[in-house]
Amino acid sequence: MLEHLKQCVYEANMDLPRYGLVTFTWGNVSGIDRETGYFAIKPSGVEYDRLTPDDMVLMDLNGNKIEGKYNPSSDTATHIELYRAFPEIGGIVHTHSPWATSWAQAGRGIPCYGTTHADYMYGEIPCVRNLTREEIEEAYEKNTGVLIAEYFKDKDYQAMPAVLCKNHGPFTWGKDGKDAVHHAVVLEEVAKMAARTEMINPRVRQAPQELMDKHYYRKHGSNAYYGQNDNE
Amino acid sequence: MLEHLKQCVYEANMDLPRYGLVTFTWGNVSGIDRETGYFAIKPSGVEYDRLTPDDMVLMDLNGNKIEGKYNPSSDTATHIELYRAFPEIGGIVHTHSPWATSWAQAGRGIPCYGTTHADYMYGEIPCVRNLTREEIEEAYEKNTGVLIAEYFKDKDYQAMPAVLCKNHGPFTWGKDGKDAVHHAVVLEEVAKMAARTEMINPRVRQAPQELMDKHYYRKHGSNAYYGQNDNE
Amino acid sequence: MLEHLKQCVYEANMDLPRYGLVTFTWGNVSGIDRETGYFAIKPSGVEYDRLTPDDMVLMDLNGNKIEGKYNPSSDTATHIELYRAFPEIGGIVHTHSPWATSWAQAGRGIPCYGTTHADYMYGEIPCVRNLTREEIEEAYEKNTGVLIAEYFKDKDYQAMPAVLCKNHGPFTWGKDGKDAVHHAVVLEEVAKMAARTEMINPRVRQAPQELMDKHYYRKHGSNAYYGQNDNE
Amino acid sequence: MLEHLKQCVYEANMDLPRYGLVTFTWGNVSGIDRETGYFAIKPSGVEYDRLTPDDMVLMDLNGNKIEGKYNPSSDTATHIELYRAFPEIGGIVHTHSPWATSWAQAGRGIPCYGTTHADYMYGEIPCVRNLTREEIEEAYEKNTGVLIAEYFKDKDYQAMPAVLCKNHGPFTWGKDGKDAVHHAVVLEEVAKMAARTEMINPRVRQAPQELMDKHYYRKHGSNAYYGQNDNE
Repeated sequence: MLEHLKQCVYEANMDLPRYGLVTFTWGNVSGIDRETGYFAIKPSGVEYDRLTPDDMVLMDLNGNKIEGKYNPSSDTATHIELYRAFPEIGGIVHTHSPWATSWAQAGRGIPCYGTTHADYMYGEIPCVRNLTREEIEEAYEKNTGVLIAEYFKDKDYQAMPAVLCKNHGPFTWGKDGKDAVHHAVVLEEVAKMAARTEMINPRVRQAPQELMDKHYYRKHGSNAYYGQNDNE
Repeated sequence: MLEHLKQCVYEANMDLPRYGLVTFTWGNVSGIDRETGYFAIKPSGVEYDRLTPDDMVLMDLNGNKIEGKYNPSSDTATHIELYRAFPEIGGIVHTHSPWATSWAQAGRGIPCYGTTHADYMYGEIPCVRNLTREEIEEAYEKNTGVLIAEYFKDKDYQAMPAVLCKNHGPFTWGKDGKDAVHHAVVLEEVAKMAARTEMINPRVRQAPQELMDKHYYRKHGSNAYYGQNDNE
Repeated sequence: MLEHLKQCVYEANMDLPRYGLVTFTWGNVSGIDRETGYFAIKPSGVEYDRLTPDDMVLMDLNGNKIEGKYNPSSDTATHIELYRAFPEIGGIVHTHSPWATSWAQAGRGIPCYGTTHADYMYGEIPCVRNLTREEIEEAYEKNTGVLIAEYFKDKDYQAMPAVLCKNHGPFTWGKDGKDAVHHAVVLEEVAKMAARTEMINPRVRQAPQELMDKHYYRKHGSNAYYGQNDNE
Repeated sequence: MLEHLKQCVYEANMDLPRYGLVTFTWGNVSGIDRETGYFAIKPSGVEYDRLTPDDMVLMDLNGNKIEGKYNPSSDTATHIELYRAFPEIGGIVHTHSPWATSWAQAGRGIPCYGTTHADYMYGEIPCVRNLTREEIEEAYEKNTGVLIAEYFKDKDYQAMPAVLCKNHGPFTWGKDGKDAVHHAVVLEEVAKMAARTEMINPRVRQAPQELMDKHYYRKHGSNAYYGQNDNE
C-alpha cells in the first residue's frame, strides 16, 4: 500500500546520514499522501544501515497504525500535529543535527546574516519555548507539535520551513520528504555559518531587509528566476 | 578461550576509528565475562589496522594475564577498578576523543543542555579531579579507577555511563563493549554541542529538570517507550 | 563549439564539491575564451551529480546566450562585469563556502595573518559593502559585479584574486576556471585559519609587511623560485 | 641510489594528505641517511596525486643536489639547518596544518593541557619569533632553520619534537620521516584540543607538572612501559 510513498520516505530517511545530519537513529523523516491522509514514517530506534523501504510505518492522522511491523518513530505525534496545522506541506524531518541543535540548546533563534539563509528562509529562524511540566507530562510529543503550530498560527509556514525547539532540536518541512531534508541541510549549514559569523564579529547585525526580500523572492513566488523554471 | 567475547571486544575496538574517536592507538575497549571474571582488552600500542580478534588480551580482575601474546593496554588497571566497582557493567571504553578531551582538559563537567544528552545521561557529566603526586607515583592507572569508583560510590553509575578525568580524557561504560562505545560516541557528540551552545549563548543555563526526567525515562526503566521494546 | 573550454569549465565546476566548497548547487565556475569573447558557465540550479560538459552554457559579454539548453547561472551578470573589468583573468568562481561566507556575513575583510595567505594574496582580502536598495532593484547581479570592479579600479586584481560581498559570499578569479577554483580553496582555508587565529589570540596583529612581501614574491613575478619554473 | 630512503620518504609524504595535514602542495617531508649525509626530500610544488618515489630529490647537507629531476622543496635550506643542529633526528616535516598554523599565526606557544600532549611532547610547544627584515632578505629559509636551532641550543629537541614559526606554520621531527609525520599528526590534534580547551574554560591552566612527568616518561626513556617494548 502506498509503495511509492514508502520508497520516497525511505530514500529521504537515508539522506539524513548521507548529509551528516544524524548519529545513530537520532532523526526521522515522514511523508504524507494527502488523498488518503496516511503518512509513512521511519520506525523507532531502527539503525539506518539495516533500514528498508518496507520498514516504513504507515499511520493515519489520528495516530492509528495502518501498516507496518515496527513501532513508528517516537516523534510521530509531533508529525501529526504539524500535518494537521500545515495543510500545504508533504514531508517533515526531525534531527539532532549538531549546529542547529546547538542553537536550540542555546535557546536562540538564528538571525538572517546572509543570502544563503535568505534564499530559503525569510527572516529569523524561530526557537520556540520549552514545554511546561504539565505539557510534558500530559503528552510530550503531541504538545511539541501543538506549540509549533501555535507559533505559526499567524505566520507563513512556507516562507519559514524550519523551527528550533528549545533544549531539543530542529524540525523542518517541505513539499515532500526529500524537500524537508533539503531544508534540514540548509538549516544546518546556516546554523553553522551564523555561529561562526558571530564569532568573527560579535557586533554583527542581521542582513538588510532589501537583501532578504531580493533573495527570497529570487527563488520563490511568481517572479522567481533562479533555476530551470521548476522553482528550485 | 572466550572466543565470542574476544570477537565482540575486537569489533568494539574497531568501531573507535570508524566513529572518529581515536587517532593512532589512543583508545581501548574491554569487555568482561562475569562468570569467569575474565575480561578481554586491546593490546597496548598496536595499530588498529593490523589488529585481529586473536590479539585481544584476556586478563583476570587481579591483573593476571590469562591468555594473549601481547601486553594489555596500559590502562588495564583502570578497567579492573571499574569492573570491581560497577558490578552491572560489561564493557569499558577509554579514548582521547577530541571534544570530550577538551572538556576534560578544561577541568569542567558537561552541563545537560538538551535532550540528546538527556536521552542517555542523567544530569551533568562529571569531571573528576587530578590525581595527587603521591597517587600518580604509587599506581597511576589503578588510582585513576579508584578515583572514579570513589566518585560514583553514592551515585547511579548506570544513569551516568561516562566520566571525564581532568587533564586526561573520558571513560565510558555499558552493558558490553559495543554499548560502551555507543556511549563514547554520544559523549563526544554531546561534548561538541555543549561547547558550541556556550559559544552561541555564554549565559545559557542547564535544561529544565522536567525535560531531563522525561527524556531519560522515555528510554530507560520500566516505562520506556522508545524503540522496539529492546530498550534502545 | 569551444568544446575544450566547456570541458575545462565542467571539470572546474566538479572540483567545487570535491573540495567541499559547495552544498547542493550553491556555486558556479565560468571560463572565458578571450578571442571570441565567449564564456562557458554552469547552468542555474542543476545538481552537480548530474552535470555534464554539454550542460555548460555559452554566453557572450553582452549577456546573450550563444549555445546551451539550460539557463545560465543566476550570477551570470556578475561574471560578465568581472570579465569586462579584469582583462587578464580567464576564470571566475562564486561559492557559499562556509568560512569565507562567515567572514562576508560578519562584514569583515580577512587580515593577512600568515604565509599561507601571503603566498597567494597580497594584503587583506577585501569585503565590499552591501548594495543599496536602488542597486538591488535596478540590477542585483550586474551591480554586484559593478561594485567589485569599482573597488578594484585602482588596485592590482591579480595580486588579490578574491573578494567577499557583504552578507553574501566570495568571488575568486584566476587565469582559468581551474586556477580560480584553486584560489577559492585557498580562500576557504585562509578564512578558517584567520577565524581560529583570532579565537586563540584576540589581540593578534597582521603579519609583518616584509613577510607578506617575501612570500608573495617567492611565488609570483620574475624572481619567483617556488615550484618547477611553471610559476606554481 | 638510497632507493629504500626515497621509498620511505615518499610514503611519509603521502601520509600528509592521508591524515588531512596538507592542502595542495603545502607540506613536505624529508629523511636522512646519516652515513652518507644525504637526505631525500619532496620536490617543490609537485601535486601529491602524481608524486612517485623516484620524484624524491636527493641532497647533501651543503645544499647540493645529488640526484633527482626536480627542484627540491623550497624549504630545503630549513631542513638542512635542522639536520645539522639535531644530530639524533632522521626525518623532518613541514606543513600548514590548520590548527597548528592558527597557533603560529596567533604567535602563541601551545600550553600542555593534558596527557595527549604530555605523551609525546614535554611542556609547552614553542613558537619562535618572526625573522627580521634583514634575516628574510639575506636567506629566508636558511635563517628559519638557524632560528629554530638557536632556540633549541640549550634544550632537549628530542623531548620536544615540534616548533611553531610565527605567522608561518609548524615543523616537526623524529627518528625518520614516518616518525616526524606521526609527530605532525599529534601536534595538529593537540593544537585543536588546546584551542577548544581555552574556549570551554578561558581561565584554564597548564596540566600539573607531575602529570606531565608521568605521561612523558611512561612512553619515553628507560622506564617506559607503554606499548610492546619497541618504544611506541
